[in-house]
Order: sequence, then structure tokens, then C-alpha cells
Amino acid sequence: MKILLVGFGHVGRKVAEIMVMEKNKYPGLDVAAFSIAGIITRRHGSLMYPSVKDISGFIYQNQGKMTDKINPGEDIRSTTLRFIRECQYDVMVELSPLSISEKGEPAITYIREALTRGKHVVSANKGPVAFAYDELSNLASKNRVHFLFESAVMDGTPVFNLVHETLKGCTIDKISGILNSTTNFILSAMEDGVSFRSALRSAQEEGVTESDPSHDIEGWDAAVKITTLANVLMNAQLKPFEVKRTGISGITAETVHQSVSKNKRLKLIARAWRESGHVKAAVQPEEVGAEDPFSTIKGTSACLRIETDLMEPVMISQVYPKVKDTAYGIISDLLTIRETTNKPVP
Amino acid sequence: MKILLVGFGHVGRKVAEIMVMEKNKYPGLDVAAFSIAGIITRRHGSLMYPSVKDISGFIYQNQGKMTDKINPGEDIRSTTLRFIRECQYDVMVELSPLSISEKGEPAITYIREALTRGKHVVSANKGPVAFAYDELSNLASKNRVHFLFESAVMDGTPVFNLVHETLKGCTIDKISGILNSTTNFILSAMEDGVSFRSALRSAQEEGVTESDPSHDIEGWDAAVKITTLANVLMNAQLKPFEVKRTGISGITAETVHQSVSKNKRLKLIARAWRESGHVKAAVQPEEVGAEDPFSTIKGTSACLRIETDLMEPVMISQVYPKVKDTAYGIISDLLTIRETTNKPVP
Repeated sequence: MKILLVGFGHVGRKVAEIMVMEKNKYPGLDVAAFSIAGIITRRHGSLMYPSVKDISGFIYQNQGKMTDKINPGEDIRSTTLRFIRECQYDVMVELSPLSISEKGEPAITYIREALTRGKHVVSANKGPVAFAYDELSNLASKNRVHFLFESAVMDGTPVFNLVHETLKGCTIDKISGILNSTTNFILSAMEDGVSFRSALRSAQEEGVTESDPSHDIEGWDAAVKITTLANVLMNAQLKPFEVKRTGISGITAETVHQSVSKNKRLKLIARAWRESGHVKAAVQPEEVGAEDPFSTIKGTSACLRIETDLMEPVMISQVYPKVKDTAYGIISDLLTIRETTNKPVP
Repeated sequence: MKILLVGFGHVGRKVAEIMVMEKNKYPGLDVAAFSIAGIITRRHGSLMYPSVKDISGFIYQNQGKMTDKINPGEDIRSTTLRFIRECQYDVMVELSPLSISEKGEPAITYIREALTRGKHVVSANKGPVAFAYDELSNLASKNRVHFLFESAVMDGTPVFNLVHETLKGCTIDKISGILNSTTNFILSAMEDGVSFRSALRSAQEEGVTESDPSHDIEGWDAAVKITTLANVLMNAQLKPFEVKRTGISGITAETVHQSVSKNKRLKLIARAWRESGHVKAAVQPEEVGAEDPFSTIKGTSACLRIETDLMEPVMISQVYPKVKDTAYGIISDLLTIRETTNKPVP
């Protein structure tokens, strides 16, 4: 199964490393069927049909023949689209960063192009799902290919697969969770007396934040994630701009101290629920008690609580995820596609 | 898909109620394909090809024609086996209580009989999986039928499906969890100053305990559950008797008080891990800090933490499950079987 990687930052490199360099490291993981047909980056150029040496050079020395395929004078979007059209691959893995101001573009255009050409798409980018889920999932069905995005929320921890594969028959009534690492990292650090500014700087140094940290701080990342979850799991047809949203920029050391003194914790909580025939969503800082499982979600950890009609609430959480967790989410989607390539896609 | 229910206590009745009486109550759940071909109970007799009226009479008035099919002089095991041989069904749902002293019998015999006859088996009983997983799963494969038991641990909350369907390619290195409701209920109540004896009585009154509460108190139920998980998820080939096991009968009000005064909680924790090529398991009371997610698992709630080679730890938990949760676990297994009946079973 030939893979085109659109984006080659930390996550793309880790995916390539596991598939190419570490293919025998994980005894339960069979990636023998996967190969990398192309890599395209925003800043380092592109590479069609790279050799193992090309890939390893790029991952480990940040160098290689990455720039030799760009047409002079062509902008990056045109180059990427040309690549998506010309390269021979089975699955496009879309790894570009979230763009709120561009409403999920240019990733939506890239994904639309690949799906139209009958290619499967795996995306770690939640933007296209939040802004264009109905269009893209219908396009995928029409072309009998997969459009999967397990790693878009909570990295490799199953949330979409959890509901689709293991909660069959359940109708989701409500979801709530701590979904943004940066704000949770900052709020956890502030509980320990670290200032907002200094906590934000640490988060940036540790590579936890989005490219633009205001996305995190103002609750946009969480709003896009709850929209993604609500659209896919609750058929919400929401847009991120419709989420009632309060970020954490108004949270002071004093607010945090007051909560801690009551044995409570401030958490940025995203919620979606059904209300008079519609799905509503909100993101806001909330005080949770020490007995609440959300209070133990620290630093970059995350969680999702799912309420259904057939069971009492179920919660899934991840503990201090690393970049490998996101890479695994992508690989798990690739395994799903490989499993079903001989079967008709529903 | 015709179903034979072996056992008709709270769980069996709830399964029947959802499938027969409430078939239109849950918008996402399609149980139209299911019908009940037979019911056999230990104390109330048996019923082959019951009508809706027969089933509703039994569920709601605890009466019906349940006793009219028992042969005089035949013991319950022979009657059950005869039923399993004579009744026309596609799936046997095995709901008998756990028997430690009989090492999972008579359920193992019932399941072996059904699998040998080419019938799928769904079991809510962890005994057969803990004591005879290899034999029964091999027999199922050989006969190209399913042997599923999602509800045997943590009711309907996905644990087996979670790993098989959503953590593909991961090797499980360690698992740990709070798996027994009775002991967790008692320890939670003792934190609030309730005596061991009185907490146990409440647990019994609320129907939380196993038929024999010493199974819970002495850690047998948790030992059987961790064995089940280790055998299925880690290929452990363990027996429950090999689990290093300490129950909570030695826990006094003072021990609990000491933990609480240090802002800690006592929890009965079950663990399985790899050690020099083998899988080991233990069940024992442990002190957990207030920051540990396990500390927020209260009363009858439960959780499982899963450590793999491809991700940082993932945890799934359930909040105060009810009998419907167990019934849903069985129904989710039935849905899995229905989905795959037209495809070859791996």
C-alpha cells in the first residue's frame, strides 16, 4: 500500500520512522505492506518515490533531495496539488496544521482532490472534519474509499473508532472532555504557582502548542475538536464558529489559587449535547471537584466522557501522550484501510 | 438470528426486555433480526420457543410456562445439555454465575457443547474464559463460529473490543485496573466511616455482590477477571489460581482512616505484566494518591489502564454501571456476530 505524506513535521517523520526504519521493532505491528510513495513539505520541498536512504537522511539529518522536484515559480499549494494528482499512491496522509482563519483550507482542497481521484485519505488534521465533514465523507463514500482521522482528537487514543467499533447501536446523548493540551498544561502549571506567561512559554518550548498559541488559549482548538466529535459521533452538522467559546486568557493566578484552596481544579472543558432536536456545543473553563475524574487529567493528558442511551457513562483518557501516539493513530487508520481494501467500503 | 438464553436472572431478563419489549426504544439499535428461541434457568425451569407473552410474563410477573419442559427426574445440568442439543438456535448466550470451586463448570461444558454443534457463543461469565480460553477459542475457530465475552469484564464497557478493534498492532505490556465492584463499593463506604460489615450488607442489598460474597472479598472475582484479560489480551495462559492474591478482609476501619488522613485511598488493584518471557498477575489492596485517576473510581465504578509499545498509557472507565450495561455488552457481541455471519470467521 503506497502512501503519500502531505506534511513532514514531527508526526510525519515519526510515521515514516515507524514504517521504514523501525518496521521490525513492534512485534504486533505488521507494516510490511506499506511503502512511502511521496513526501511533500511546506518549507523543505518535496520528494517523489524516495529511497530508504532519502527518508532516513531527511528524518535524521534534516536533509536530503527534498527540494529537487519543485517547479520554479510554482507556489506551495499548486505544487502540492500537482503532487496529489501525479504521484502514484493508494492513501494520502494529510498532516498539515489546523487553519481556523482559512476554515480548514488548504487541507480540504487537498483531501477533496485525493478522494475525487479514488484515493483513501487519512488526516491528523481536525480542520477538514470540523469544517467539511459532510462533503468529504460523502465524497469518500461515492468513490468507495476511506476518509479516516482517528488521530485528529486525542492522538492515537481511540475516540472515533471507540464509538464506531465498540459502542455499536448506542446513540450518543452527550460528550464532554478535556481536549486541548496547551491549556491543560498551563492550568496544571498555574496550580503549582507558575505564572500564565511562563507556563505558556514552557508549553511552547515542549512543542505542545499549535503553531499559533492563541488557537489554544482562546479555546479554538478545543472548539474545533468538539465540533469534529459532534459532527462525526452525533451527526451535529455544527461549525466551529457556532460553539459557545470562552478561553483561558481571563484566568488569573488568583482565580486558580481560589479553586485550589477549595480543593477544586480549573479545567477547560468542551461539551456537546442534544437540545430541542439540535446538537449544541460549548468550551469554557469550569471548576471540577477532587472526586471528579476530570480533576486527575494533568498536563498534556486528555479525556473524553461519553453518555449514551444504552449504558451509564464511559470515559477514555490518555496519559501524557507523545508524538508517537499521534503517529500510531495514523498507522491504526492505515491498518483499517489495509484490512478492508479487499472488501467493499460501506 | 435465534438466541438461546442459558440463565435468566437480572441480566438475561434485561437482554430479553431490550430485544423483545423495548425493540423500538433505542433509535440506533437494530435488534429486529434477533428472536429468542429458548430460555433455560436453574430454578424456574425452561421454555423452548417462547411467545412474546411467555417472555413478558416471566420478566414482569416472574411467572409463565417456564416449568413445562423439564423431564421428571432429570437434573438441571442434563436438562440444560439436552436443551443445548435439541433447541434450534444460532447463538447461545451463557449467563450462569461464576464458579471458582468448579473451575468454570458447568458453563465450560455448555459452551463446548454449543461450539461443537457449530453455534456461536456469547458469555457474560468470565469463568470459562479464565479457565478454558485456549480450548474454547480454538474450538470456536475450528467450527468457524464466534466465542465472544465483552460483558465478562467491566460489563458493556469495551475492553476486549477496545484492544482488538481499536488498538490494532499494539502489543500489551501491562494492564492494571479496579475490576471488582463489591470491594470498591466497600472501600469507598469505609472511607465515609461505614463499617466493613455494614458496607458488605449494603452491597448485597443492592445486588452488587457475586452469589458468594467471599469471591469478591477474597479477591477471587478480580483474580478471575485479570486472568481473563491477561489470557485474551496478552496470550498469558494463566490460571486464576496462579494469580498472587490478597483480598480486603484484612482491611480495618483504622487502615482506611490512615490512608484517608494522608489524602490517599485504598483500592483493590489487579495487575498483569510481562516478566522474563511470562505473564504474571496479582490482586492486592494498594494505596493510591489523590492525583492518581484510580482514586476517583468510586463505588461500583471500574477502570482499566492499558500500557502498550506504541502509545503512552490509555485508560477506560465506567461510572456506576447498571444491569443494562451488562445486557448491552451481550447485545454488542450479538451485533458483532450478526455483522459477520455472512463473512468467514477468522
